[in-house]
Amino acid sequence: MTRKIRLGAFLPGGGQHIASWRHPDQPADGAVSLDFHVRLAREAERGLFDAYFLADGLATGGTSEGGPARIAGFEPVTLFAALATQTTHLGFIATASTTYEEPYNTARKFASLDLISGGRAGWNVVTTATEAAARNFNLDTQHPHAVRYARAAEHVDVVRKLWDSFEDDIFIRDKTSGAFLDRAKLHRAHHKGQHFKVEGPLNVSRSPQGHPVIVQAGQSEDGRGLAAATAEVIFTAHQRLDTARDFYRDIKARARGLGRDPGHILIMPGVSPFVGRTESEAREKYEELTSLILPEDGISLLNGLTGGTLDLSGYDLDGPLPPAPPTEGMKSRQALIRQIADDNDFSIRQLYQWVASARGHYTIIGSATQVADMLQDWFENEAADGFNILPPWLPTGLTDFVDLVVPELQRRGLFRTAYEGSTLRQNLGLPFPVNRHAVARAAAQAAE
Amino acid sequence: MTRKIRLGAFLPGGGQHIASWRHPDQPADGAVSLDFHVRLAREAERGLFDAYFLADGLATGGTSEGGPARIAGFEPVTLFAALATQTTHLGFIATASTTYEEPYNTARKFASLDLISGGRAGWNVVTTATEAAARNFNLDTQHPHAVRYARAAEHVDVVRKLWDSFEDDIFIRDKTSGAFLDRAKLHRAHHKGQHFKVEGPLNVSRSPQGHPVIVQAGQSEDGRGLAAATAEVIFTAHQRLDTARDFYRDIKARARGLGRDPGHILIMPGVSPFVGRTESEAREKYEELTSLILPEDGISLLNGLTGGTLDLSGYDLDGPLPPAPPTEGMKSRQALIRQIADDNDFSIRQLYQWVASARGHYTIIGSATQVADMLQDWFENEAADGFNILPPWLPTGLTDFVDLVVPELQRRGLFRTAYEGSTLRQNLGLPFPVNRHAVARAAAQAAE
Repeated sequence: MTRKIRLGAFLPGGGQHIASWRHPDQPADGAVSLDFHVRLAREAERGLFDAYFLADGLATGGTSEGGPARIAGFEPVTLFAALATQTTHLGFIATASTTYEEPYNTARKFASLDLISGGRAGWNVVTTATEAAARNFNLDTQHPHAVRYARAAEHVDVVRKLWDSFEDDIFIRDKTSGAFLDRAKLHRAHHKGQHFKVEGPLNVSRSPQGHPVIVQAGQSEDGRGLAAATAEVIFTAHQRLDTARDFYRDIKARARGLGRDPGHILIMPGVSPFVGRTESEAREKYEELTSLILPEDGISLLNGLTGGTLDLSGYDLDGPLPPAPPTEGMKSRQALIRQIADDNDFSIRQLYQWVASARGHYTIIGSATQVADMLQDWFENEAADGFNILPPWLPTGLTDFVDLVVPELQRRGLFRTAYEGSTLRQNLGLPFPVNRHAVARAAAQAAE
Repeated sequence: MTRKIRLGAFLPGGGQHIASWRHPDQPADGAVSLDFHVRLAREAERGLFDAYFLADGLATGGTSEGGPARIAGFEPVTLFAALATQTTHLGFIATASTTYEEPYNTARKFASLDLISGGRAGWNVVTTATEAAARNFNLDTQHPHAVRYARAAEHVDVVRKLWDSFEDDIFIRDKTSGAFLDRAKLHRAHHKGQHFKVEGPLNVSRSPQGHPVIVQAGQSEDGRGLAAATAEVIFTAHQRLDTARDFYRDIKARARGLGRDPGHILIMPGVSPFVGRTESEAREKYEELTSLILPEDGISLLNGLTGGTLDLSGYDLDGPLPPAPPTEGMKSRQALIRQIADDNDFSIRQLYQWVASARGHYTIIGSATQVADMLQDWFENEAADGFNILPPWLPTGLTDFVDLVVPELQRRGLFRTAYEGSTLRQNLGLPFPVNRHAVARAAAQAAE
């Protein structure tokens, strides 16, 4: 089977670009409109995207990096449960925090979403790196970066154990005999670790995918280690092919070193495309959105992207970005934003204009051919197994991609022309995670 | 407006009666079938029920009181988000734990369900009273009853504060000026209490109901106190009109004492009806289900209902119930089960047969007239404002009620013939909870 590009879509109903809500095409109340999210999900499915992806924070307010329209929306897993009923093949990757949730609850909600969607759920594992979130969960300040990552690794481990509570063939359901299940195939987690003590079993059935797909986005040393050990999809942000390739090779090597098949870790950089029938049409779209940015929203964005500690009030918008104090949050994202400013010699205003849509991800302005060229280049040069597309505004930014770029990728034989399977795993080409207890049973039988 | 009976429906896909999965009508895999739950929701809506109600534990396994078919199902809030898209008027009351969830997460998921459903969400507040659940959440044994209730009261308080983060008219969304919201109408919770410290604001928008409906089921002294102070619907279990009336009067008096309008606390005892066109047809239905109970499931049920501490192995099934050691869990439920055994002089076998469907709730076997007589009697004699119907098996037990009892109640003028409103609050006749900050603002303006 030829290797194909995988595509995820970031579709926050409030729009990706901080001014997108002001665009004529975008419903101003999109962030809280179920109907609009249904429309987006169906549009992504029409484009044969692998998955609908939603980020999530556990705070809002003064430092919202999403722009005003994203101050309040839905909780992603409940939203996706609703959207799953309106679609048939699209996957749903929801963000949930290992720092502010208990593994039993995390395991339940994703197993439940996987049942509801018939095997289309994914979990984007995050440690939630903001001070504002810490203050919503009984803390004055967040745990150190390393502590969050250690907890994350254990959290994922516990969740996976819980997802193996039920072997796939546990249920007998024989009305005549009254035998409902084979209790030998029901397993406790018996987990006792540094951060968690969880007995199990889970009370949600093993779901169609066995385990919902594990997704991560960490780029720091801790983040890469966790991703290489546990992730099946990695969402990453790069400005240049060379850094993307370094990251790609590093993760694949780490995975190989841990005994994993590197083909089972899909690396998907984020790309924010302004697509036109011509480059100049694309550029007009970019200029139109840029013109809608209010300076206070731009400053709020930069403040959010740099960890909420960079106070830009009093600085000249047309002067350079001042240095920021170190924080425990989103270290690699902060470095990336600063790199963009340095590489391009941007003023504060130019910086927020450029990152207003992609927030550190790659922004491309061009014709369908140009966009497809870039994606193909990265895909064929060890920088990406696929991409997370961040349409700058909705639904048109998505529709442009579906109508212009997808057919071009299909013509080049780089993208599917129909879904390969019915689960997210099948479409991503990821293996089914055989239940550890079934594996142990088979090993014991083979040894007899 | 004439006072009408309110009706909730307990519709676990695995069936209410512990042997229901063996009934020919009930899908053996109903507990994990989205399609079956959709069918149940639509059937309840056809019957003009106020709400679909789902209980929830945070454990499963050896002491499942639901019978084998309920060992694993869905997480209720995600399931209801999916069902909300398949219905238009039915409310959805999901259980969630104040002991094993953080208020910020609880507030988010119910606000999100309320947005998704267009204002049809309710939260059944529970403290989760099993040792098995404690062991899934880092504990060796659960917190004392009083501690759980103190935490519950504070948890609900925090959630309500978070639901007031956004005033109802906060959003301006003027594309021309770029004014998205009035920041003066965005509020932090600033909560610092015994159990929680939560800064806020919530990152899910205020939802159509303002606050999802608060439901509770506590019957102990602590439980009654919490319910009188915070609940809008109380789910309760009584075997006799006189105890139901005592409870009803006690709660209404407590509410009045706290300055609340007693009409805004709806008391809804659980009723498990076996309905036939005649009494003997109803009795046949009861006998049919009873004949399907396996003794080990009956014993497991009694063990679960008495807090997981009563080991019945070695006892004669046709002898009396032995005494049980005291526990920190579900005190009032344990007393109720014992009362049923004592009042009826039941053997262990007779006891589990009788409680196999209703688990301590009122069981009635009769014609539609007889069932309607009982409901009317309790409704008109200060024992109930409505009822939570627990159909013993599904979907037929629900269909019987909808086709036989609902028309009889309507003929008597006791039940609606069409939904009054579009939100759960409107249908239940509960007031809209005006945002506390809007109240404060109005008071300040009046004082000027």
